[in-house]
Amino acid sequence: MAVRVAIVGATGAVGHAMRDVLEERNFPVDRIKFLASERSAGRKMSFRGQEYAVEELATTSFNDVDIALFTLPKKLSREFSPIAARAGAVVIDNSNAFRMDPDVPLVVPEVNAHAIKAHKGIIANPNCSTIQMVVVLKPLHDAAKITRVVVTTFQSVSGTGREAMDELARLSRQVLDQKAAVPEVYPFSIAFNCIPEIPSRTPFEPNAYTEEEMKMVNETRKIMEDPSIRITATCVRVPVFIGHSESVNIETARKLTAGEARAILSKAAGVRVKDDPKGGVFPMPIEAAGKDETFVGRIREDESIERGLNMWIVADNLRKGAATNAVQIAQHLI
Amino acid sequence: MAVRVAIVGATGAVGHAMRDVLEERNFPVDRIKFLASERSAGRKMSFRGQEYAVEELATTSFNDVDIALFTLPKKLSREFSPIAARAGAVVIDNSNAFRMDPDVPLVVPEVNAHAIKAHKGIIANPNCSTIQMVVVLKPLHDAAKITRVVVTTFQSVSGTGREAMDELARLSRQVLDQKAAVPEVYPFSIAFNCIPEIPSRTPFEPNAYTEEEMKMVNETRKIMEDPSIRITATCVRVPVFIGHSESVNIETARKLTAGEARAILSKAAGVRVKDDPKGGVFPMPIEAAGKDETFVGRIREDESIERGLNMWIVADNLRKGAATNAVQIAQHLI
Repeated sequence: MAVRVAIVGATGAVGHAMRDVLEERNFPVDRIKFLASERSAGRKMSFRGQEYAVEELATTSFNDVDIALFTLPKKLSREFSPIAARAGAVVIDNSNAFRMDPDVPLVVPEVNAHAIKAHKGIIANPNCSTIQMVVVLKPLHDAAKITRVVVTTFQSVSGTGREAMDELARLSRQVLDQKAAVPEVYPFSIAFNCIPEIPSRTPFEPNAYTEEEMKMVNETRKIMEDPSIRITATCVRVPVFIGHSESVNIETARKLTAGEARAILSKAAGVRVKDDPKGGVFPMPIEAAGKDETFVGRIREDESIERGLNMWIVADNLRKGAATNAVQIAQHLI
Repeated sequence: MAVRVAIVGATGAVGHAMRDVLEERNFPVDRIKFLASERSAGRKMSFRGQEYAVEELATTSFNDVDIALFTLPKKLSREFSPIAARAGAVVIDNSNAFRMDPDVPLVVPEVNAHAIKAHKGIIANPNCSTIQMVVVLKPLHDAAKITRVVVTTFQSVSGTGREAMDELARLSRQVLDQKAAVPEVYPFSIAFNCIPEIPSRTPFEPNAYTEEEMKMVNETRKIMEDPSIRITATCVRVPVFIGHSESVNIETARKLTAGEARAILSKAAGVRVKDDPKGGVFPMPIEAAGKDETFVGRIREDESIERGLNMWIVADNLRKGAATNAVQIAQHLI
């Protein structure tokens, strides 16, 4: 089966990663179409050695599309995803417009691929931080039932977008040159700093958690199909270009030793264990960048409770956290 | 009372901060002496407008010293602290040579100043990450009894020393210039990266935790004088020059609302609450650098358990995490 694909929001960091992943995976693309806002229309993007002009996103864009990979701001996704679905495309949407909609599957293929078939034209791609966490948690949950998760994230600026990557580079250079570093994308300089607020400039939820933190709580429960898992999250932006890291503490109903967890995870789909209890081996964002797997290390028993583990989970947020996961869903569709 | 002070390890990042804090606090210094290894001897350091030559540390260095602020590698501390104490000086030691010694008080003045008087010539200054955490935890423990702590740290490179600060600057510039970034201080490049191993090049403990992680567990219990508190820690180096941040999750015996915790902490010694549950206000390392207080924000109830809180604690690791705490101990001594 050859498929007509559209990348919607093609010119952004995730759009580019979607294009790369389609190429690398030899996705059976019959025709490809790059769509973006008016501002970016006309720019050139290449695919398999051929050049394409980016087209302006319009209500008529989807009449000849089978699968539309959306990576747009929430508001635009909410507007155009149903249009694309009505035109006959299956939308895989990277925004959080539909993720918690009970009629929309929220899918990480290694965890709940079976949910895909219930789609009604739109499938939601989860939040980047959630994807890499559940890929690791699911096999442990199956083995020992996870009852509680305490997670703290170290999130790269590419999660905000290309303009945030440019800002990190610019501000870092200004700090090194002892010049004033005036931020534009973030309300504070991210250069050599940590900002415990994701997304920025967004009021906290009534419970004082950020949107990103509540995404991790709610999306994890939906993807793992277990609303009984108790989760609390702290999400922090760090001066890293690509790759989210997570310090994850879990409590399980059945005791898992670190060795058992390592053995389970070394057989888990999409997971690469990078761990040595003697030291010196662990995942890091600069090494995970550009890779499709989710890396886990620092697996050790939590001595503060009877049945708990700590671990360190790292993945490329543009790939497994966005583009790779979306293309994997597309692969399951065809 | 005018005091004869020595700063031992004066030429390092913490040594400089000790000098600065003594000046700022108008510590009643009668005479000051800067001591360091042979390599640094002869270098000049100023104090209150006067210049001093750094002297080489020797067994005879302490005959005319009342208080010796030590910031040396553990091995040298273990050698010279007892020599200084025998010569009649009171040693305030920033290394971990004596911290868990039952005969040596381990002191954070806001938490357990009373322990100082039991000293036998040596008082230990706790680990930087531990100090800023216990300053915030103690008043909450007094109010509601903390039963468990899950902490993840975001630690700046100045904790390693001046050479690590130089390395972060150098490697960051190399990455921005798209040149090869070859680390020397750390085994991996810290530029735009996160390294979940503190200290580097040190085998993990038999339980797969790092030395830094176990310091946080053991020192917290000793300083809080409550071995029943269960603690688990994950310590991570981040590309920040100065200022450690901590994501701290606590469970308490009595329920504390976020509002109660905020009220308690806003009256706590050494603590500055920087928090707005509506968003946009929280501590960050670039703002805490150069300050003596410990900052806390993102205080919110942990909805995954009945009685728990999350918070975000930031302090200048060279100051409250080292120099300021040592000078505060010295102030209590006199």
